Amino acid sequence: MSLDDEWITEICEDGGSAFALKGQGKLFEQQSAFQKVEVFETETYGRLMLIDGCTMVSTRDNFLYHEMMSHPVLFSHRAPRRVAIIGGGDCGTLREVLKHPEVEKAIQIDIDEVVTRAAELHFPELCESNGDPRAELMFIDGIQWMKDVSPGLLDVIIVDSTDPKGPGEVLFSPEFYSACHRALDEGGLIVQQSESPLIHMAILERMYRSLQAARFADARTLFFPQPIYPTGWWSATIGAKNTRLGDFRESDVATKAFETLYYNAQIHRAAFAEPEFFRKARRGWPV
Amino acid sequence: MSLDDEWITEICEDGGSAFALKGQGKLFEQQSAFQKVEVFETETYGRLMLIDGCTMVSTRDNFLYHEMMSHPVLFSHRAPRRVAIIGGGDCGTLREVLKHPEVEKAIQIDIDEVVTRAAELHFPELCESNGDPRAELMFIDGIQWMKDVSPGLLDVIIVDSTDPKGPGEVLFSPEFYSACHRALDEGGLIVQQSESPLIHMAILERMYRSLQAARFADARTLFFPQPIYPTGWWSATIGAKNTRLGDFRESDVATKAFETLYYNAQIHRAAFAEPEFFRKARRGWPV
Repeated sequence: MSLDDEWITEICEDGGSAFALKGQGKLFEQQSAFQKVEVFETETYGRLMLIDGCTMVSTRDNFLYHEMMSHPVLFSHRAPRRVAIIGGGDCGTLREVLKHPEVEKAIQIDIDEVVTRAAELHFPELCESNGDPRAELMFIDGIQWMKDVSPGLLDVIIVDSTDPKGPGEVLFSPEFYSACHRALDEGGLIVQQSESPLIHMAILERMYRSLQAARFADARTLFFPQPIYPTGWWSATIGAKNTRLGDFRESDVATKAFETLYYNAQIHRAAFAEPEFFRKARRGWPV
Repeated sequence: MSLDDEWITEICEDGGSAFALKGQGKLFEQQSAFQKVEVFETETYGRLMLIDGCTMVSTRDNFLYHEMMSHPVLFSHRAPRRVAIIGGGDCGTLREVLKHPEVEKAIQIDIDEVVTRAAELHFPELCESNGDPRAELMFIDGIQWMKDVSPGLLDVIIVDSTDPKGPGEVLFSPEFYSACHRALDEGGLIVQQSESPLIHMAILERMYRSLQAARFADARTLFFPQPIYPTGWWSATIGAKNTRLGDFRESDVATKAFETLYYNAQIHRAAFAEPEFFRKARRGWPV
């Protein structure tokens, strides 16, 4: 069966696979200084944002990604007061972070303001906390910002980036992780999306090696579904500065005053369960 | 971007989505008395079997499905000696079942022998236990077989079927579950693939209602990735006769003498974690 022009198709070259959603017209297109940003209406997934032709976020399934990029790491930290989000221009991660009453300051640094403008227009629900007095949105180079920030300023860093190729590649480098390590306070945590465990094990291994090179004391990966990304199976990896991972503020999860669609205490524990092939591969990795 | 004829594409009508793998030629095609069975070589997923145009099994990712259809239910049963597999003609589930030394007899009943012949030719690794003296392969109507079988004959029933439409629909009916309930011994368990939690919640609800109507005492759903199926996020639901679910033979998992790629004790527990939206929906369901 072949797909006609009504379908919005992303080909994953490394996976030899493609994912498509039935479209109902383009709502937004702008070539920014950095990339091409598009938003489509789809038949069943609500709206879909593409950046340079790659699926980024859909109305229907973004809750999985945004909740899993924020709540596990925040509930794994004892007292997450100061949070930085690198990338994350659609503002969905920022919204989840600001649901945590302990957070006093959340700075989102995405180089491309066009992504946020497109999100404000077409994913207004993701932007509903942009006006929160604890939120600060900056449209500058997050890598430079991280190098310049005062040491120990942050409790949690969330790297909500594109794939590790092109402009996103440096966000997976030991140099960037070193800057993050310096920017984190004692016990600070970094989390970064770490691609699909089925087809990107080499990227995951490189991340573990880079986190160790940057002197992170521990690292663990969490796994979750993400239908619009290649294989539909995604991961995020947490690195810890001068502390071990494992425990989380479980009673705070049980009594949390905000709603989630995917995340809860059961899912928190479950997300860290390592598939057997991953557990075996990890034995040979550092951290 | 559009896909040329080299791509093998499955459109999921209810999901408004499509999944495609880059093909390298057709290896097998036969119109059986029941359905059209095809096998393709793909660029990155090994071989891919389609039945009536729907993706069924690939070399690369079938371990997820086959392990999760067999090991959680078998390790949840105290002493699984007698197992029946309804469907499962590719023999991958049978292979996993026969890894369990407690299993004395495993009967696979798939109506279509052509599926098994195609698997023997193009997925020989899935068929490697077909000659096990404990295995019996029958090519008859599994629904009729279940109606006729002696009451209490089975410890575990695995329904490894197609989607609940067309010929597969009756396998999701209260009548079929009643026949299964009768065929199970006390404490017996049934497991059935139960589609994608993201787009098939109505099917899951119907399954819970049908299991209750068939007098199953408890039911629980397990969740796992399955890249070649719509959304990449799949589930299976277990029903229990005159017993509660929850515990499993954890020490037997820890000391199991066979290899797995995905399943282990951590994954067993994790698979039963209920996403928040599912947990809330389930409150309104029986069982």
